[in-house]
Amino acid sequence: MTAQIIDGAKIAADIRNRVKQEAADLKAQRGIVPGLATVLVGDNPASHAYVRSKRKACAELGLASFGHELAKETTQAEVIALVRLLSGDPQVHGILVQLPLPAHISEEAVLSEVALEKDVDGFNPINIGKLGMKNRMPSFAPCTPSGVIELLDRCGAKIEGAHAVVLGRSNIVGLPVSLLLLGRNATVTVCHSRTQDIAAVTRQADILVAAIGKTRFVTAGMVKPGAVVIDVGINEVPDATKRSGKRLVGDVDFDGVKEVAGAITPVPGGVGPMTIAMLMQNTLTAAKSRAVGSKE
Amino acid sequence: MTAQIIDGAKIAADIRNRVKQEAADLKAQRGIVPGLATVLVGDNPASHAYVRSKRKACAELGLASFGHELAKETTQAEVIALVRLLSGDPQVHGILVQLPLPAHISEEAVLSEVALEKDVDGFNPINIGKLGMKNRMPSFAPCTPSGVIELLDRCGAKIEGAHAVVLGRSNIVGLPVSLLLLGRNATVTVCHSRTQDIAAVTRQADILVAAIGKTRFVTAGMVKPGAVVIDVGINEVPDATKRSGKRLVGDVDFDGVKEVAGAITPVPGGVGPMTIAMLMQNTLTAAKSRAVGSKE
Repeated sequence: MTAQIIDGAKIAADIRNRVKQEAADLKAQRGIVPGLATVLVGDNPASHAYVRSKRKACAELGLASFGHELAKETTQAEVIALVRLLSGDPQVHGILVQLPLPAHISEEAVLSEVALEKDVDGFNPINIGKLGMKNRMPSFAPCTPSGVIELLDRCGAKIEGAHAVVLGRSNIVGLPVSLLLLGRNATVTVCHSRTQDIAAVTRQADILVAAIGKTRFVTAGMVKPGAVVIDVGINEVPDATKRSGKRLVGDVDFDGVKEVAGAITPVPGGVGPMTIAMLMQNTLTAAKSRAVGSKE
Repeated sequence: MTAQIIDGAKIAADIRNRVKQEAADLKAQRGIVPGLATVLVGDNPASHAYVRSKRKACAELGLASFGHELAKETTQAEVIALVRLLSGDPQVHGILVQLPLPAHISEEAVLSEVALEKDVDGFNPINIGKLGMKNRMPSFAPCTPSGVIELLDRCGAKIEGAHAVVLGRSNIVGLPVSLLLLGRNATVTVCHSRTQDIAAVTRQADILVAAIGKTRFVTAGMVKPGAVVIDVGINEVPDATKRSGKRLVGDVDFDGVKEVAGAITPVPGGVGPMTIAMLMQNTLTAAKSRAVGSKE
């Protein structure tokens, strides 16, 4: 049996189309254009590429974006001053601080300054805390983890009561996706580099989320037949057939695992496109919340 | 084989003795008396009993306590005003808001007002968020979960690399203890009422933490031989031999499980005494941090 291939590119496009339509409605009906401010410190090429993609998505969907690029020598106090300014700017509905920040700046100190109602990346520690707690709702959940949940829902996976195994416990993927799965009533196991006999654990997973950053780490023998496998990994491997000399692969051995799993995301074209789609959706939601707030 | 019985009463007494000694030193050397403010709203008899025990412990250990008892009709704004006042009071090093609060008051709104450096209960959502995140340190971890970790350490359990299974995901025990175990590099599985075949999961546990609130839920057949079993449950059962007509039992069938487990906490006398001991330790730590701060 070959697994259902979960088409993240198509699902992301659906979400983007809906955001585009709703943004147009919001503008027509209320004169509000959802606005995303991006804060980028330093000259990390990958970070610049990410921010470009996010601003491009805004332009395509009819959202405003406000790019703030700061030199790598910028002080923490200056970054915080900017974040506070944006937190108070009525044209800005969402604030995205591109990570990582230069080493001399505390991520925690900066992220804590993002107004909760504009925290479209969901990384303010208060929002992470609420993510895990019963009867508390974060204003926003982080985009990649939300994208994982969206893919599970769209492919028909039953989360409640399922045993979900998450490989990796990073602040931006592994931890928040674990908390989201727990909130959806999965039994959740978090594995990491110190886990003993990891294959014995992953083989129990009805839902397996790989976010461990190791090329093709998950092999067919580690997967329960019929499991839903979500691959968050993005790793470069050499490929002489490509002009760039390399290509992207995930944390899952796709070719092997697709013969065992019930459903699986490819890399690229699986989780990747979801991150920006969820960011756009969160920014729209932030603008709509403001619109409701201002009506009252 | 009969399990090692983990003597929480003795371990708690050790911690209290050390806190008492260090508090005396702090007073002698710096003239600082650690102070705990308790905030109690309404007339829940159990809450009154808990606060009395905490204030009694302060008195026994040479800590100051400042009791604030408010009528059940007190508004949320009034409770918040008090918490802000205490957050700014230099005699108060720790603030404990006794839960639950009356239904018309938002726990989240009140707990968010507790100054982080005085959050000796560790329930400010920022502290819960940091508890789960890499490279972030909460100012304090919640007392019962910290007590569980302390018991594990004192009985010689190896947490790193162990498979820890936590039954229950409450904000005050299950969730934070799961995050603490993850931070100590255990592989962590969180189970709850929606978990399928819970016995199959618990039988894998090297460390089993029961915080599910069901009388003698964990039976011998659910426990791996040699596992360390920590029982957080406190349930009343009828007992005609007692003058009160009842006695306390845990979430674990102690008599059966002690024949299988490698180590086990009794109820009472296991986790119970640790909560107040950790609260006293956190209050001392808060006072010492202030002392260091004021020296600079």
